[in-house]
Amino acid sequence: MSEPLDSHVDLASVSKDERLALMRHSAAHVLAEAMLDLIPDAELGIGPPIDTGFYYDFRLSRPLTQEDLGWLEERMRQSIASQHAFQMSKVTRSEAETRWKQQPFKLDLLKDLEDNNITHCTHAEFTDLCRGGHVNHTGEIPVFKLMSIAGAYWRGSEKNPQLQRIYGALFETEEELAAYEAQLEEARRRDHRRIGRDLKLFDLYDEVGPGHVVWLPAGATIRRELERWVEDLEIEHGYDHVITPVIAKRELYIRSGHWDHYQDAMYPIMEREGEQYCLRPMNCPHHIMILASEQHSYREYPIRIAELGNMHRWEKSGQVSGMSRVRIMTLNDAHIFCTDVEMVEREVEGVLRLMEHAYGVLGLTDYTYRLSLGDPNNHEKYVDNPPMWEAGEALLRRVLQRLELDFYEAPDEAAFYGPKIDVQFQTAAGKDESLVTVQVDFHLPTQFELEYVTEDGGRARPIIVHRGLLSTMERMVALLIEQYEGAFPLWLAPTQAAIIPIADRHVPYAEEVAARLKSHRLRVEVDTRSERMNAKIRTAQLRKIPYMFVVGDREEEAQTASLRVRGGGNLGVMSLDDIVTKLVHERDTKALTP
Amino acid sequence: MSEPLDSHVDLASVSKDERLALMRHSAAHVLAEAMLDLIPDAELGIGPPIDTGFYYDFRLSRPLTQEDLGWLEERMRQSIASQHAFQMSKVTRSEAETRWKQQPFKLDLLKDLEDNNITHCTHAEFTDLCRGGHVNHTGEIPVFKLMSIAGAYWRGSEKNPQLQRIYGALFETEEELAAYEAQLEEARRRDHRRIGRDLKLFDLYDEVGPGHVVWLPAGATIRRELERWVEDLEIEHGYDHVITPVIAKRELYIRSGHWDHYQDAMYPIMEREGEQYCLRPMNCPHHIMILASEQHSYREYPIRIAELGNMHRWEKSGQVSGMSRVRIMTLNDAHIFCTDVEMVEREVEGVLRLMEHAYGVLGLTDYTYRLSLGDPNNHEKYVDNPPMWEAGEALLRRVLQRLELDFYEAPDEAAFYGPKIDVQFQTAAGKDESLVTVQVDFHLPTQFELEYVTEDGGRARPIIVHRGLLSTMERMVALLIEQYEGAFPLWLAPTQAAIIPIADRHVPYAEEVAARLKSHRLRVEVDTRSERMNAKIRTAQLRKIPYMFVVGDREEEAQTASLRVRGGGNLGVMSLDDIVTKLVHERDTKALTP
Repeated sequence: MSEPLDSHVDLASVSKDERLALMRHSAAHVLAEAMLDLIPDAELGIGPPIDTGFYYDFRLSRPLTQEDLGWLEERMRQSIASQHAFQMSKVTRSEAETRWKQQPFKLDLLKDLEDNNITHCTHAEFTDLCRGGHVNHTGEIPVFKLMSIAGAYWRGSEKNPQLQRIYGALFETEEELAAYEAQLEEARRRDHRRIGRDLKLFDLYDEVGPGHVVWLPAGATIRRELERWVEDLEIEHGYDHVITPVIAKRELYIRSGHWDHYQDAMYPIMEREGEQYCLRPMNCPHHIMILASEQHSYREYPIRIAELGNMHRWEKSGQVSGMSRVRIMTLNDAHIFCTDVEMVEREVEGVLRLMEHAYGVLGLTDYTYRLSLGDPNNHEKYVDNPPMWEAGEALLRRVLQRLELDFYEAPDEAAFYGPKIDVQFQTAAGKDESLVTVQVDFHLPTQFELEYVTEDGGRARPIIVHRGLLSTMERMVALLIEQYEGAFPLWLAPTQAAIIPIADRHVPYAEEVAARLKSHRLRVEVDTRSERMNAKIRTAQLRKIPYMFVVGDREEEAQTASLRVRGGGNLGVMSLDDIVTKLVHERDTKALTP
Repeated sequence: MSEPLDSHVDLASVSKDERLALMRHSAAHVLAEAMLDLIPDAELGIGPPIDTGFYYDFRLSRPLTQEDLGWLEERMRQSIASQHAFQMSKVTRSEAETRWKQQPFKLDLLKDLEDNNITHCTHAEFTDLCRGGHVNHTGEIPVFKLMSIAGAYWRGSEKNPQLQRIYGALFETEEELAAYEAQLEEARRRDHRRIGRDLKLFDLYDEVGPGHVVWLPAGATIRRELERWVEDLEIEHGYDHVITPVIAKRELYIRSGHWDHYQDAMYPIMEREGEQYCLRPMNCPHHIMILASEQHSYREYPIRIAELGNMHRWEKSGQVSGMSRVRIMTLNDAHIFCTDVEMVEREVEGVLRLMEHAYGVLGLTDYTYRLSLGDPNNHEKYVDNPPMWEAGEALLRRVLQRLELDFYEAPDEAAFYGPKIDVQFQTAAGKDESLVTVQVDFHLPTQFELEYVTEDGGRARPIIVHRGLLSTMERMVALLIEQYEGAFPLWLAPTQAAIIPIADRHVPYAEEVAARLKSHRLRVEVDTRSERMNAKIRTAQLRKIPYMFVVGDREEEAQTASLRVRGGGNLGVMSLDDIVTKLVHERDTKALTP
């Protein structure tokens, strides 16, 4: 017999987060209740609370529509108005099996439960297999809204049936819900996937594969400008740029430890004629091979080996997303080989200064540094070498303090071989993400038995600083798309100026103006369509082209152009000389305008 | 019983090539005769004539030395002086098996022979299993020299035992042998593998794999300069540069035909979670995907999609060589989509003009064009579409003639889908190689069902021009290393100037000069070693650094430097301003000096 449980909760006495979780979980039950009214043979999946509300997964005999959401929301409000109590009860396995015999997903969940730990939750006519965590009655569910319908696999695996997921937002006040909706709209507006498609920056094709990004001409232009800039910047700062193979023998990654620690994220082995090869998951072993191929004296240190290195990461096909989560990526990577901790400290300082400079050029400000520490008591997760951890953590902290950078400390976030500094950015969707990292590594030098010749002719082991700067090109461009909302500064803009002839008879002069700008390597297009001037201006604005030069009879006669700025300003008539000077200067100084 | 055969030959009545082949084959037998005197239990492999002489493969109980070659050569001269007759005879299989029972490789060869076609050749005490082709007696063997010892696998397969191969050169006159030796020395001097190692341009590591080239900082610098130049050049000429993934689903290459026609040269499939992926062997399918992802009007054509595309080719590990034959390569590739044959003709002309320009900038002159034709009667090898072949071949011929380019026609050398123009270069080793190719392709547009919108709103199938320009970066840099013998023109030189302080007290001024040059993005090094000036100059010359600036008291006082040119010239004292002007001008104009 089912045994009722007391699950009363005093909402005023729990934290806001806990309270919201109870409310959101309860709303999910009410959604399922409503669904069984709409589609009685609906098969129920799961319905948990999430950060901004809740969802519930269903297998349904037909696809849901936007109208269904309205109907369900209305039906939920009725249930809420009725203040149905949530009643938990303990049941036996056979009771549960009988109860869920028409619900295959519930039966599947039941398998994972222990016999004396099977509970149901009932409100109104609706019962769910549920471990609890609800408000007292449906009337305690505050402001909510059904937001969207999405596809989801049962238990997240593509091998299982696909379900329909309904997302709901739930907050305690109308103001909080409105703020969340505004933030969603902002994220949608800045979403690099949408802008990337609209501006033809990149694409993804089924035949090529998930997470295999294709950089279209406009996106490849942005990437080319970034890559050349960062290569030149690093070379100026004493980095040696190399190009190393994307494939190596499996043995190399066994030695580096990637095979043991990282195999799940690697593409499968390629085996032929007795040889076993892997696509590289990271660049470190390759840079170490270069260092190890020659004997170096302490005088040559630090040795900074850099590469725009192509890497490969096996993400589940359901988890890749736009350019921010991909399977093939190019990391702006470097490994700095140092003789001792003092040199590591100087080099880390140099890296952070370079970061500050680079992010400044790009106009990025919305980031903080995170000092990620180990755990001295956890020898499973971290290399057991207390003096190394102490020295490493202290030096990273000193550098952050000396440079007066905003940072916070995060225990238990280090790499297994050493502490690190992460650069934490906010994505448009409001998520906090590590963009790049600076790591101190005493471990790989031992794995590869690296040595340098000391001043007295002896041998000593170097230390490696692993560091990114711009992150992967994929992630950085995704971030910049969101940062600029597609309106790139002149030096990065795929098309830097549109020349707009007022009438067809002005096309030859427009071509002349374009040729003049192109001779200074400016990326220019002439809009030769037989459209009205305003339509052409509108097109250029939609394409986020920084400058528009309108040319008609007067401009042609005076050898000038009438200058308009992306966003709407009109800068009046300028001579071609002044236009070239202005644009070249803006490009060469990497100005964040217009 | 063995049955003697008449194999008399009148050397005066056969062609020079035939005569040399008989002489070279005979010399190989004499070498084997000598070897059995030196190492009686030598196991004999094969001993054929080759283009410049002959070789013989042996399995030996010890490694051969240079001294052994001298001894063998002397022993061969004795046999030649004795004028031993070469006597062919026919033998039965059992006679042969008895004769060769101690010689496993001969027994292995015997398996491939038909019963009534087993012959021996005997001269002096030496007998070989041999199908004949000799001079009448050893006295007819003219000028020869044993050149080198190399390793070789039995029947060329790594799975078989490794043998020692002795190479001999053989010509009719001393003059011809001397000319050949001079050519060998020239090839050795220009060999990109030797220069690449000496100048630390690239490297290969066992742990990474054969044919997986590692570009060291100096080589990566050359490549970066070439890549940026060629990208800018192509963009200026209306190419759209893209970046596409190096991996795609197997289906893509099935559709393109690569899976059927090219599978042997592909890395093995990577299979995981039910997905099958291949490393791409070529870029064409990816560029076609970009074209096909959007509907294009005839107005937008020609569409030129270009990429520095990474490709992967499974070469046998025994066949890779330096940078000229590798497994991972980056092709300076493009596909030009055209509406009709007239447009193809204009575009091919544009491609050839761009080639002439690019090779001119690089100072390459030692090449010719080859018009590679199909065979109208061979429908197995070539697509059966006579009007297409006629039109294609005629237009390629017209363009070559109109541009007055040196070319020759080669029947039966086309791609299976259409005729092409190959650019044929001479390697340092004297081999004729296709560096790049321009192909007309009516086939892939059909495979991918490509279409464009015609002027009257209908649909028509485009034609593709496949074209290279610089070839792969690996091959082009190998060619340039040999062309320049490592002495790259200023714009490509990894280090453009060495600043040489005469004494240690001049180091600060040397660093000042270096900083001045670096501020103009010149690649400069200061030689701060405590060595004499002449030793520093010698080092810079060995490293083929274009310019050396020597600075001492006088130069420091006058803010000048004393300029020396790679190769030995002394240009006297120059002001720093003049030095900067000279070098920047030379770099920016891509001058072939110094």
